Parts: sequence; C-alpha cells; structure tokens
Amino acid sequence: MYRAPVDEIAFALRHHAGLSQVLGDGVFSHLDDDVLDAIMGEAGRFASEEIAPLNLSGDREGAKLANGAITTPKGWKEAYAHWREGGWNGLSAPEAYGGQDLPLVVNMAAFEMWASASVAFALGPTLTMGGIEALAAHGSPELQKRYLEKLVSGEWMATMNLTEPQAGSDLSTVRTKAVPEGDGTYRLSGQKIFITFGEHDFTDNIVHLVLARLPDAPEGTRGISLFLVPKFLVNEDGTLGKRNDVICSGVEHKMGIHGSPTCTMVYGDGGAHSEVGTGAIGWLVGEENRGLNCMFTMMNNARVAIGAHGVGLCEAATQKALEYARERRQGKAKAVASEGAVAILHHADIQRELLTMKALTAASRALVYSCALAIDLAHANEDTEKKKYWQERANLLTPLAKAFSSDNAVEVTGRGVQVHGGMGFIEETGAAVFYRDARIGTIYEGTNGIQAIDLVMRKLPQSGGQHVLSYIGELSEQVDAFKASGEATAEVAARLSWGLDQLRDATVFLQEKLQAGDEQPLMAAATPYLRLFSIVLGAVLLSRGVTHDPEGQSPLLRFYAENLLAEAAGLKDRVIHGAASLDEAAKLLWKD
Amino acid sequence: MYRAPVDEIAFALRHHAGLSQVLGDGVFSHLDDDVLDAIMGEAGRFASEEIAPLNLSGDREGAKLANGAITTPKGWKEAYAHWREGGWNGLSAPEAYGGQDLPLVVNMAAFEMWASASVAFALGPTLTMGGIEALAAHGSPELQKRYLEKLVSGEWMATMNLTEPQAGSDLSTVRTKAVPEGDGTYRLSGQKIFITFGEHDFTDNIVHLVLARLPDAPEGTRGISLFLVPKFLVNEDGTLGKRNDVICSGVEHKMGIHGSPTCTMVYGDGGAHSEVGTGAIGWLVGEENRGLNCMFTMMNNARVAIGAHGVGLCEAATQKALEYARERRQGKAKAVASEGAVAILHHADIQRELLTMKALTAASRALVYSCALAIDLAHANEDTEKKKYWQERANLLTPLAKAFSSDNAVEVTGRGVQVHGGMGFIEETGAAVFYRDARIGTIYEGTNGIQAIDLVMRKLPQSGGQHVLSYIGELSEQVDAFKASGEATAEVAARLSWGLDQLRDATVFLQEKLQAGDEQPLMAAATPYLRLFSIVLGAVLLSRGVTHDPEGQSPLLRFYAENLLAEAAGLKDRVIHGAASLDEAAKLLWKD
Repeated sequence: MYRAPVDEIAFALRHHAGLSQVLGDGVFSHLDDDVLDAIMGEAGRFASEEIAPLNLSGDREGAKLANGAITTPKGWKEAYAHWREGGWNGLSAPEAYGGQDLPLVVNMAAFEMWASASVAFALGPTLTMGGIEALAAHGSPELQKRYLEKLVSGEWMATMNLTEPQAGSDLSTVRTKAVPEGDGTYRLSGQKIFITFGEHDFTDNIVHLVLARLPDAPEGTRGISLFLVPKFLVNEDGTLGKRNDVICSGVEHKMGIHGSPTCTMVYGDGGAHSEVGTGAIGWLVGEENRGLNCMFTMMNNARVAIGAHGVGLCEAATQKALEYARERRQGKAKAVASEGAVAILHHADIQRELLTMKALTAASRALVYSCALAIDLAHANEDTEKKKYWQERANLLTPLAKAFSSDNAVEVTGRGVQVHGGMGFIEETGAAVFYRDARIGTIYEGTNGIQAIDLVMRKLPQSGGQHVLSYIGELSEQVDAFKASGEATAEVAARLSWGLDQLRDATVFLQEKLQAGDEQPLMAAATPYLRLFSIVLGAVLLSRGVTHDPEGQSPLLRFYAENLLAEAAGLKDRVIHGAASLDEAAKLLWKD
Repeated sequence: MYRAPVDEIAFALRHHAGLSQVLGDGVFSHLDDDVLDAIMGEAGRFASEEIAPLNLSGDREGAKLANGAITTPKGWKEAYAHWREGGWNGLSAPEAYGGQDLPLVVNMAAFEMWASASVAFALGPTLTMGGIEALAAHGSPELQKRYLEKLVSGEWMATMNLTEPQAGSDLSTVRTKAVPEGDGTYRLSGQKIFITFGEHDFTDNIVHLVLARLPDAPEGTRGISLFLVPKFLVNEDGTLGKRNDVICSGVEHKMGIHGSPTCTMVYGDGGAHSEVGTGAIGWLVGEENRGLNCMFTMMNNARVAIGAHGVGLCEAATQKALEYARERRQGKAKAVASEGAVAILHHADIQRELLTMKALTAASRALVYSCALAIDLAHANEDTEKKKYWQERANLLTPLAKAFSSDNAVEVTGRGVQVHGGMGFIEETGAAVFYRDARIGTIYEGTNGIQAIDLVMRKLPQSGGQHVLSYIGELSEQVDAFKASGEATAEVAARLSWGLDQLRDATVFLQEKLQAGDEQPLMAAATPYLRLFSIVLGAVLLSRGVTHDPEGQSPLLRFYAENLLAEAAGLKDRVIHGAASLDEAAKLLWKD
C-alpha cells in the first residue's frame, strides 16, 4: 500500500523546485519551514491511511448512474467529507473566503499525494480548485459572495463544462446557447460531454462552469462566454432553492478512473427534474465573449494539477513495483550468495527498470513543482518586471509539467506492471489500475500534442524569443555552479552541459522557423521538442539537489545522466530533421 | 472495423522477409506465389469478417467459470468451429497428421491477422500450435498416433502448463509431481497458474502439456519432465473415456484478453470431477528430466507467435486510429483550404503520430516474418552448415521478434488511444481494448527482460560470437546494395549505415564483456541492446522493399530513417555507459 514519501517531497519542494530560497526571501507570508513540514506530514498521513485503501475497490465498483443521480463507490463520500473537514480543499484558496492562502506549490505537493492514493478520487477536488480560481479571478462580487465560501470549504464542488461532441481540442465550435433573460440571468441549453464529476453524491450542490454562446455572438473562439450554472439555485440566505434544468444523462464506461464519474450533461431540456421550467439558469462569469480567457484561468492551473497527478501515479506505481521486487524471488544473481532464488531486485535488468521509474518520477516531480512555484511567484510579485518574468516562466513550464509528467505516468506505470510479470496483468494485484488510470492524463486538459503545440507556437515566442533562451542560459549557469561545487563528476557535468547544448540547438532551430512563419516543421517537431526540453530540464533540476545532499542525491542523478539523458540526441535530430519526410509519407495515410 | 492488409502482408513476406527469393529457389514444395496469395486473401477475409466482429463483445463478456467449466463469450465457440473447419489450425502442421505442412512464416502471417481481429481469440490456437510441435518432435509414436491428428484438425486443443506460484521466469523450482505407475503412465499432482485456455468450451477434449518432477529427480531445471495429460482419457478407438483428475479451480480477472480464459489448474486433488481416482493420469513426452528442452520446442515458436500477435495489434490499432483521424474534424491547417474544421489527419502532429505507428508496425512485421522464415529454412535445409546457419539466425531473431513486436504493440496501441483523444479512453470506441490486450504480450512466453538476457547471454555467443557479427556484415552489404540501386537518397543511406555502426559498436562491446565473464554490464545492457538491435534491423529490412516498389516504400523508410532510427544513439550510449551507475544507485532501492 502507498506510503507518502514525505521527506522526498519536501526535499524536492525545497531544493529541486527552489522553495527553500524563496522561503528564505520571505515571499510567502503564510509559509515557513515548520508549517511546510507539518502540512506535508499530515497530507501524507491522510492520503496513505484514508484515501489509498479506497482506490482498488473504487476501481472495481465504479461510479453508477440511475435516474440522473450518480452513486460513487462505497466509502468515497465519507472520505471526501473527512478530507474537506480537514481543510484540504481550501489549501491554496483565498483567505477572504475561508481558504488558507498557501502557495499553489504546496497544494500541488498535496495533490501528488491524493493522486498517488487515488487519482480518480483526486480528480473532483482538482476541478473544484479550478472553479474557485476562475470565480475568484473573474466572478462578480455577487457571485463570489454567493458561491466562493462553500466551494472553498468543499461543501459544494465545481465542474468545468467545455467539451461537446463536435468541440474537443478545438473549442471554436461550441454550440451550447445562453439567452439573456434581461434580469441578469441567462437560460442555457445544450449538451456537454466528458464532464468530470458532472454529477455525484459528494455534495448537496454542484456548481457548473459552462462555456456557451450568446445569441448573435461572433463565430469561433471569440464568441464564447463563461457561465455559472448551479445544480440547485441558491437562495439569498445561502440555502438551496429550486433544482435547475441540468441533468446527467449518461456516464462513460472508461478504461480507468472508474470511481470518477465522467458525465454527459444536458442543459435546458426542461425535463421532469427541472423546477425552473425549460432552460438552465446561469450567470455570466467575466465579460461576454471572453469566456475562453476566463476558462484558461482554471485550465492552466488544472494542467499543472494533471502534472501533479502524473507524479502521484509514478510514485505509487514505483513503490508498488519496488515492494514486489524486494519480495519476489526468482533466479540467481552472481553477486548474491544465496541458497535458493534471490529477490528479483538483485537482477541488474530489474534494477535498471526500477531506477528508470524512480528517475522519471523524480524528474516529473521537480518539473511540476518548479512550474507551480513559478505560478506562485508570478502572483506574489508586484513588480512588473519580475511578475512578467515569472509569468512567462510559468507559461513556459505549464505544458512541460502537464505533458512530461503524464507521459511518464504512462511509461512508469507500464514498467510497474512489467516488473510484476504475470501478476501485473491481474487486476487484484493493483498495478494494472495505475496503468489504466494513467492513460487519460495524456489526453484531458488539452492532449499532450496540444501542449506541445502550445509550447512551440505560444511559449517559445515569449518576449521575442528571449525568455526561453535566457532560461536555458540560467540552467547553464546552474550546471556551471554545480561543477564548481565539487560534487559533480566530470562525466555527469559533461552530460548535463551536452544536454543543454542539444536543447539550445533545437530551440534556436525552431525560433528560426517561427520567424520565417514556417508552420509545418514547427507542428511536426512540437512533440519531440517538448520531450527534449523536459528530459534535459529534469536532469538540471535534479542536479540542484546534489549540493544539499550529495550522498543521497548523486546516485540517481548519475543514473539519469548516464541512462536517460542520451535520449536527447535522437530527439534533437527528430526536431531538426523529422519534418522533411512528413508531407510525402503522409500521402500514404490517405490511401486505402 | 479491421480490414486485413493482405497486399501489405504479402509484400512484407516476399520482400522484407525475403520469401520471394526462397520461393524462387524452390525450397518449399507446397508453396508458390498463387497459393500464397490465395491463403493470405482467404485468411484476411476470415479474420476481418468472422473474428473481428466478436472482439469487443468478447472483451465485455469475458470468459466465465462455473463449477470447473468455462463459458467463452457469445459466438466464440461457433467462430472457432468455423475457423478449424476452414483448415486454419493445421496450416503449418505435419501432413502426416492432416496438416498442410506450409512454412511457419505463412502461418505467422495468418496469426497476425487472427490477432488483429482478436488477440484473445488467437491465443488458444497459438498454444495448440505449440503443443503440436512439441508432440511431433518429442512424443512417442503411440502418443502421436492418439493425439496429433485431432490436435491438427483442431477437434481438440492443447495447453502449456509451466508456471506455478513460486516458479515463473525461473522454472527451476517447479514442484508439480509425477509418480510412475509402472504401466507407462504417471500420476500427476500439483497446481499450475496462468494457464491460457486451460479450460474452455471450444472443444470436447483439452490436451495439457505439463512440466512436473519425477520422484528423486535432481533439483533445478535438470529434474523437470514433460507430460501429456488429457482432460478426458482417450480410448483405443479414439473416443473419449473417463474424466481425468484435472480441473480448473479459478480464472483470473485481468486487464485485457478477457475472452481468453487464464486458468488455475489443479492436478490430482481427487475431487468429485475425477473418474480416475486421485492423481491425474499422464504420459511422458520425450526423455525423463529433459522436459524443459521439449517445452522450449513449443516455447520458441510460441515466442514468434506472440511477436505476430504484436504485429496484429499494431496493425489493428493503426487502422482504427487512421480511420478516426480521417473523419474527426478539429481545428484548421494552414495547408488546407477549408470552410470549417479539417480532418485531424491534416495536422502535422497527428501525421507524425500515425506514421510512427505505421513505421513501427511495418518494422515489427518485417522482423517477425524474417524470424519465422529463418525457422523454416533451418527445418528445410538438410545440409549441416546451412542448417546451422539458419538455426542460429532463428535463435538470434526469436527474442527480437518477440520483444520488439510486443513492446511496439504497447506503444502503438497507446498512440492509437491518444489519436482518439477522449474517445480513446471510452471502452465502446474499441481503441482501449487493443491497449489493454497488448500489455500482456511483453510479459508472457518469457518477459521481454528475459528475452533481452537470452539475446545477450545465449545468442551473442553463438559460433564464438561470429554469427551475429557476420549477420551485421550481411546487413551492411544489403545497405550497400540499396545504395547502389539508385533508389536510396544519400541521407537515408547514410542513416542506415550509421545505425549499423551503432549496432556493431554495441555488439563488440558486449562480446568483450562476455569474454571477460563480466556479467553485470551484460545484464544491465540487455534491454537497451535488444531495442537497439531491433530498431536498426527494422530499418534495414524495410529498405529491402524499396527496390521492388520505390514509390510505395520509400516514403515510410525515409520517415523511419529520419524520425525513429536516431533513437539508436541514446540506446548505444546506454548499452556502453548505462551499467556503471547501477550498483551505487541500486542501493537506493533497498532503503526505505
């Protein structure tokens, strides 16, 4: 069973992501070292003892729909109640609404633990967190007053309603309609699909944030507005009023995250459930036709959270495989004197497998926490220059954190199955569920292909291309400092520098294409470039821990540098040369 | 729905694997071009029309156990009956027992198609094929007479009973007992787990091939014998007699291949089912204590067959994703004039994804067919030198065919899910089932880690290390011939030669370690070396098709050479430098 690696997480926060220095600078008024350790310890306990035991049974039972109502797996509702009573839901929410106003990076470390314990369980609160951010940033004072406190306490939960059958990665074709009633409210109608926790029994009310189109709104993405549509209307005194005209009409049968209900939501069909007639009553959030911008407020942080989920899955799968490899005995190993068979962890092939898992987990964690901390620093800084600097850093790291970590979750959970041999394929063992659950992380909140395109098309050009180059320069300085510290072997240091050279070359190449407006090679190179960036960045981030704990940190960094980093050679080659064959070869794809 | 790519398969057989030249030499008396095309066409029709429609429902229903009897999913039993009536079961079985005595390579091409249609369905016949081989090679004339004809016709099916709870990758600890009765029979007792199609309703009888230990047999692998244990004893006249003392006591709840029953088999518990008292009655196959050798006869070809399954999964997943990408419309593409959204296949990122899938499928196919053809040529050649040459080639290629193809099946089916976006995660879409089914291919019939160790420890030393080096030399000559043909661009040719250089360097490095008896770096390097060998070999095999069809074959080869082959750089580096950090880093794995 999962045991939260509290010390590793705290170390990664402090030294890989750099929270230690930020705490020293006194940027976060609510956080010091003691508070950090206390929170991590308590979150780890809750995740390990109260959530993790529900994961496998939740996977087996799944979320069930009957008459528009979802029943979550046994024990989940109670665990959620206990979780929110612990104050976990408002960890990084505004103090004005009852939150603890702690940095996002702390919340992301907690989310890693919730996700290790059960990513299906962690998903609902992830969406609520996004909803709180969107409302806090864009909601009217009236809406904030009525909804935020209960969302922050977790008494109610929030959802994100974006996708429609014809509108997935491309939201420009959203069709759901919102008609103004003239009294400040709107009536919504339409169908949304793939709505996570769109309906459930955790809370009495559910606050849907819904993308829809006003009458006569411009076509495309500039005609989409964001609305708040509660499942039950909320009276002046905060009590629940009439049931709104929104209902869950179906729940998906999915490969994983069975405990998390993925719902089809119907707005405004005037069915028997509705106590408000036909048309779901909603309120505008932010400005008309600026809904996508508001939605991206919640989406961006949700992307980092999906990254944190990926780290959690990596960690849980690695722990499980490690436990098995220590106990399962098969074969002999030359280096081990033994009568019978030895634990498979003595076999070099298994060691390579588990160290790969551990290294990818550590790199994903370092990257996700670094991204979350950049978001925090963008918020915390008032100074325009610094704010811009951290905002651009956060923008740059978000697609990396989301995609690298969720890709690694697929890889690491797969290796976890493999280490178990035949037992890994048996559901009761509990390795398969991580693998099935991990597979959605590369898809939702923007597929990893979309993340890569975002990285190349929107993040590389930041500040005229200077932001990314100066960041690579900073990373080079860190490697130089690492060399100077005397803790780096010449081999490892050389490999880190070499990795940064590959990244710089690929970056310069893509920036030339950007300047030339030559789109095809950019789009073709996006995915390998994202991987290249991440695998190199992961190594440099891990190296930052070595000076703080040479004995504990050097061995894994060396393994990473000498086993994983060389992937960068092939990736750079693909970035630069991979697109040339594409047009001709793609013709094959249209032939029968 | 899957449509068998009959022309592609026939082309791969002829030109990637080299069957065309072999047919020209007249090595196979039963096969000519017309027969080949007819068989492929008819197998393709059967797979597409009669098996494929049963896959998704079979996954949903699964195989169900009640009172020791398994019910397979609806329609499966009838499909099997129809399949065996078509003569497919005996395609490469001995003519003397009613088989068609066609080369294994033809059968593997057919198995690719059965597996594309439903790998869970294809598994049962895969095991029967292995059983036929073991009996034909090692069974007494008496056993052959009584069992082979009905196994070849498919009236009965066979199983392989190796694994026990404590004996998986390491069979030395097999505990199942066999006690001689003095009349030529033995009484077996013990428990076997993970027995594919150990019990089912396809056939009236099931012929189990079981590893067990005689009383006073030496410990370890040299004390294991192979026995034939029928579910029902067979009378002199071939009719079924008493129910033997063997029963299925459980069926696993697995991540995939739900339609294929994975059984726990209990031998000799003297339960109510037994009509022979206590102890399952069995007959020795081959010599006493030589059971592992006999089992490897069936295991080796089963490994190639698992490779063929991997190809089938790659093909099916690629077809499905391609179909979706042609139809699903999202976003705009600069190169395409369009009012609304364009098919996602116009996006370069999706093209890269699908071409990667197509290239890995083609390379896996070329490798698996080449391996099967080598086995055929080892059988067909009487001349000692040639026989040895082809036997060593088959030995070398078997772990590559099994591991590369099953690894690629995981990767390609995963990319297939990804191309579908959110729809890929929904079970009804039918992309997820390929992904779940593929995950077992890297585990059973020897995990891919075991394949890699087999490659490095047993196959590299063949003929004092000369076999593999001369093969790499042959591949270099093929690349030179390709250059000379005028069909290769300088870029592609240079990349192929570069790839072979990486492979040669890594091979020489490992052979030095072999000579020095330095085991740890060999074991640590095994998995990346297997991948390196396969990715380079795949490119060279594909290049052999270009001179036969430059227009059709060049674009994919170029894509492969310029996008996938560069992976070899990192792999070679890992082979040579990856082991050094392992001992120190592995200490982390023992810490809490």
